Amino acid sequence: MTIPETARWLAGRDRFLILTHRRPDGDTLGCAAGLAQGLRDAGKTAYILYNSEATARYLPYVERYWAPEDFTPEHVVAVDIASTDLFPAGGMEYLNKVALCIDHHPSNQGYAGLTCLEPDKASCGEIIYALLMELNGSISPDIAASLYVAVSTDTGCFAYSNTNAHTLRTAADLIDAGAPVSDINKALFRTKAKSRVMLEALIATSMEFYFNGAVAIAVITQDMMAKTGAVENDMDDVAAIPGAIEGVIVGITIRELTGPGDSKVSVRTTPQVNANALCARFGGGGHAMAAGFTLDVPVMETKRLLLTALDEIFPLDNGKPADAAQPR
Amino acid sequence: MTIPETARWLAGRDRFLILTHRRPDGDTLGCAAGLAQGLRDAGKTAYILYNSEATARYLPYVERYWAPEDFTPEHVVAVDIASTDLFPAGGMEYLNKVALCIDHHPSNQGYAGLTCLEPDKASCGEIIYALLMELNGSISPDIAASLYVAVSTDTGCFAYSNTNAHTLRTAADLIDAGAPVSDINKALFRTKAKSRVMLEALIATSMEFYFNGAVAIAVITQDMMAKTGAVENDMDDVAAIPGAIEGVIVGITIRELTGPGDSKVSVRTTPQVNANALCARFGGGGHAMAAGFTLDVPVMETKRLLLTALDEIFPLDNGKPADAAQPR
Repeated sequence: MTIPETARWLAGRDRFLILTHRRPDGDTLGCAAGLAQGLRDAGKTAYILYNSEATARYLPYVERYWAPEDFTPEHVVAVDIASTDLFPAGGMEYLNKVALCIDHHPSNQGYAGLTCLEPDKASCGEIIYALLMELNGSISPDIAASLYVAVSTDTGCFAYSNTNAHTLRTAADLIDAGAPVSDINKALFRTKAKSRVMLEALIATSMEFYFNGAVAIAVITQDMMAKTGAVENDMDDVAAIPGAIEGVIVGITIRELTGPGDSKVSVRTTPQVNANALCARFGGGGHAMAAGFTLDVPVMETKRLLLTALDEIFPLDNGKPADAAQPR
Repeated sequence: MTIPETARWLAGRDRFLILTHRRPDGDTLGCAAGLAQGLRDAGKTAYILYNSEATARYLPYVERYWAPEDFTPEHVVAVDIASTDLFPAGGMEYLNKVALCIDHHPSNQGYAGLTCLEPDKASCGEIIYALLMELNGSISPDIAASLYVAVSTDTGCFAYSNTNAHTLRTAADLIDAGAPVSDINKALFRTKAKSRVMLEALIATSMEFYFNGAVAIAVITQDMMAKTGAVENDMDDVAAIPGAIEGVIVGITIRELTGPGDSKVSVRTTPQVNANALCARFGGGGHAMAAGFTLDVPVMETKRLLLTALDEIFPLDNGKPADAAQPR
């Protein structure tokens, strides 16, 4: 469905329940908050299904919209949920009952009755903004704030490669509509928990470099998290840390997921190396420059297996100097 | 002068030399490169005065425009230079010969013959963009890239408090004009030198917290820089590190500037504490939330003096819990 069609569909209905995805980020939560308020501003009843995994930084935006237990929706709307395996805990009863899905993921499975999909948008927040402008003609400062959170977090404050001109123009419109950009940026992008800062320090000092600095591998153990007081909240985008170092072509994080017997691997690459192909060898996958897999083996053994696999990739044909697979 | 007036002034003249400021950042260098190419596209001769302090990340944008030694300009244009004490090494002969200054700093001293000042702009790049659109009606992808560097670096990739809707709309226009946003973002905002990462780790692990976590003090010695291989290039915005930690009201860095006998102090605060007033006690100053000073005493002695001064500020009247000035 197009955005005007979707707006008309919403305008003709009432009593909405909005679903957010598992391990919810700023995009799904900001979109849900903005849509809930926008529907209320249009005279509707709208709530967000409680998501137990919503983290503290986003709660102020969403918690006022949590559905009461006795709320019986007429229409269920999913925002930013690409597939049914991303449904939140507590959302399973709605698996086959989603009337409308609003999303920007090209991989959207089309599980909903109707889908408003705009795969060229960097964030779902851009779609909700256009939708609410179509529905109500304007948005309140509260909605602008929620949607600014959505747009800015899904693009890493406009630094990720998905950022485009439309993203920036939507963000500009949201500032004009009253989003407190300076406060939001300070809270989301210029503030770090002490535990996160200490964990980053430990990751940096324990990271090892191979193949002349082209590969960086960070091992993150439960012990490291305990030492720094890091919790799951602090793990946002840690997978990007090794690959962000100058000269690194393959950046890898290997995390103990539940304990010393298992490994969760995230691989980030530059276009010279296919992350998806590397992870496929271990039964995983993803995208060309970001992929992952899990193994039921200890992290140091996973690291050894990865280095053996990398031995077949390096030296690259394109002239990157080779080196033995030894820490330097 | 307004932007249309400035465009007309440029259109009627030729043989320009463009000056950038001391310790040049992405804004002054990106603006100079964009303006030089824009003037050339208008059929003019234009060069940038060599700036020996330009760092490697920005050289690809500016070095092709360095003025040959035998170039005799007819008109000298300063970009993003607020005062004559910010003139670059090698620019002293032009101190009283600047025909036009294009700037966005409210503090601009008006040292030039003519000044195009737009103090509401977050970056000088936004002014140069408007100026070149006025002059030539369009900009090339090369110019768009240089100006994207200007706009994005001066706003910390749109995260600093100066970011506004105009900034984001200009950035969107620059992407439409061909700025390779993904490559620029990767190079400037998603890549760090290994030495910088290691220095940040050392700063984090050696930082100390006082007054119940409201004050964070990082001491950066020459020895720490040597250990991590950090050079001056790696010191961009290190002053922001302590203040970026959750709960910190006063974030302080104390750097050994030339050796163990002197201290360069940077103070970053939230609105609850006046950084300028704190630094004024030590003969320094700045803004309400960002100020600094230098002292000819060793860093640990400077730290002691600062803690004594902070004892008079904390506990804050507004209810922040107090604590003894001891590391916790």
